[in-house]
Amino acid sequence: MSRIALDGMGGDRAPGEIVAGAALAVRNGLDVVLVGDKARLDPLIEDSGVSIPVVHAESTIDMHEDPAQAIRSKRDSSIAVAARLVAEGEAQGLVSAGSTGAVLAAAAFIIGRLPGVARPAIGSVYPTGQIVLDSGANLECRPEHLVQFAAMGAALARVYMGLESPRVGLLNIGEEVGKGRELEKQAYAVLEDSPLNFIGNVEGRDLGRDTVDVVVTDGFTGNVLLKGAEGTASMLMQMMRSLLAERPELGDATAAIAPAFEELQRRIDPETYGGAHLVGTGGVVVVAHGSSSRTAIANALRMAAEGGDHGLIDAVTFGIEALA
Amino acid sequence: MSRIALDGMGGDRAPGEIVAGAALAVRNGLDVVLVGDKARLDPLIEDSGVSIPVVHAESTIDMHEDPAQAIRSKRDSSIAVAARLVAEGEAQGLVSAGSTGAVLAAAAFIIGRLPGVARPAIGSVYPTGQIVLDSGANLECRPEHLVQFAAMGAALARVYMGLESPRVGLLNIGEEVGKGRELEKQAYAVLEDSPLNFIGNVEGRDLGRDTVDVVVTDGFTGNVLLKGAEGTASMLMQMMRSLLAERPELGDATAAIAPAFEELQRRIDPETYGGAHLVGTGGVVVVAHGSSSRTAIANALRMAAEGGDHGLIDAVTFGIEALA
Repeated sequence: MSRIALDGMGGDRAPGEIVAGAALAVRNGLDVVLVGDKARLDPLIEDSGVSIPVVHAESTIDMHEDPAQAIRSKRDSSIAVAARLVAEGEAQGLVSAGSTGAVLAAAAFIIGRLPGVARPAIGSVYPTGQIVLDSGANLECRPEHLVQFAAMGAALARVYMGLESPRVGLLNIGEEVGKGRELEKQAYAVLEDSPLNFIGNVEGRDLGRDTVDVVVTDGFTGNVLLKGAEGTASMLMQMMRSLLAERPELGDATAAIAPAFEELQRRIDPETYGGAHLVGTGGVVVVAHGSSSRTAIANALRMAAEGGDHGLIDAVTFGIEALA
Repeated sequence: MSRIALDGMGGDRAPGEIVAGAALAVRNGLDVVLVGDKARLDPLIEDSGVSIPVVHAESTIDMHEDPAQAIRSKRDSSIAVAARLVAEGEAQGLVSAGSTGAVLAAAAFIIGRLPGVARPAIGSVYPTGQIVLDSGANLECRPEHLVQFAAMGAALARVYMGLESPRVGLLNIGEEVGKGRELEKQAYAVLEDSPLNFIGNVEGRDLGRDTVDVVVTDGFTGNVLLKGAEGTASMLMQMMRSLLAERPELGDATAAIAPAFEELQRRIDPETYGGAHLVGTGGVVVVAHGSSSRTAIANALRMAAEGGDHGLIDAVTFGIEALA
């Protein structure tokens, strides 16, 4: 079973919720090692009532530090130490709710890229199970980067969604061939000739539709797309609540449907489907939300363990090799 | 009162729904002139029971033609003739549900840009009243283009939302200064020193929140953001319907809340808030959805008339001048 190194000090609610999340995961049978300030982590682990190994890390990286510089200078930071466990084979995966930039830097400098990978990318999972990548690691991309994202996203979809031949779409402003920026036009031509199940251009509105499994784009656009979806979902839930609250005569009906409403909320809650995958490095890396609760941390740990157990690294390596 | 030239032949449901939309608008007191094949339009107008003037146009531009070339070669197309009415002052505004590219080309070549405007942009209105621009006219932009979009978007928000000092935000992947691509970094610096009420970077999730009135970005990102929001909204409504349908014991409650649900659907329906504005040209130009129904056309006509009556062109001109 894969062992996952968990950054105990990263995230807005660290270390309390992080340790609590680790405890949940360990109770569910996962193999977790906590990395961070032993003096702070030990009492929390003690309180949790489960036994979790700790690897001490002297310092932490703050959200406001320059990530690349911090990873280079703070070799004893919790995220650097956790990444080193993966690099040295002591752990198969890494989970952190700390600075995304620091996780990216640790993955690049300490764990290292897989052979042939030009740019590791963040693959985020949408509530429908669709994978969007890159969703924030690479703001400016060249066509060959998008092509690699496609291969890595297909690997994620195979491992996590169990899809044999995931449908890969290129995010664009229209479905017709020839649409988009120079970036999309060139990437399209290469994807068309690739071994991937490339279905052509897809649009923002394909998010949420059963038309595509892997949505490929640059990290700026992917980030905006996913956060826009999040904003729209919140707005809609809020509007629905207001519309019902304005109709006191519907009090009984509103109360009756509340559980269905809560189930909807749960399904679209990023905490439910955990963090995002950084793919293209030599270990399974899951980037959890900064505000992660114990549930989110436990889900991120489960994702990382699944990636390790089901051969994500081999799948990505194979996908990149097949492009050549 | 502003007279609006309506492309009678543009759109998936032309000319039937277009004429029906014109009839609705005329009944509501608007001044509309239909442009297109008189032999086809006249009987439809006759059937509608209201009197609507027609300017004949011999040809139409197909969705699959190259827009710029079609506008130059088909001077007698409905969209070109409608644009000429605006250019010659016979009408103050133009509405078309035809090819967006053809509308852009007609606006650029026939109506012409306002002085100082480098690139006209499409400003789309989100259900909250927030304006996103550019949402598809300019896929690759320079910082100075984004700055002009900001000024034009603020003008739209003043005229349509009645806001005195609209909050202008730069779409980015984080709120902190220094985030984003070279494009955002440079545009940020100029916006900060502009006379606009620039509130800094905003994220995709600010769509739907009362944090910003005008969201500025390039046309590729804006298009993806808005279509992603559309997809997410559809998915959520669909999920809610399924969750309720799976619980037959909630039949009565579901029936009771149906009107609130329909009201929600109506509020987020693009047909309700009409089309998108092409700003930066010498006339009010509203681009309606290709699938526009009569209601959508009537709403787009109302938007165009409001823009004409409330001085949109002067507001945009003033906004661009104030940047210099």
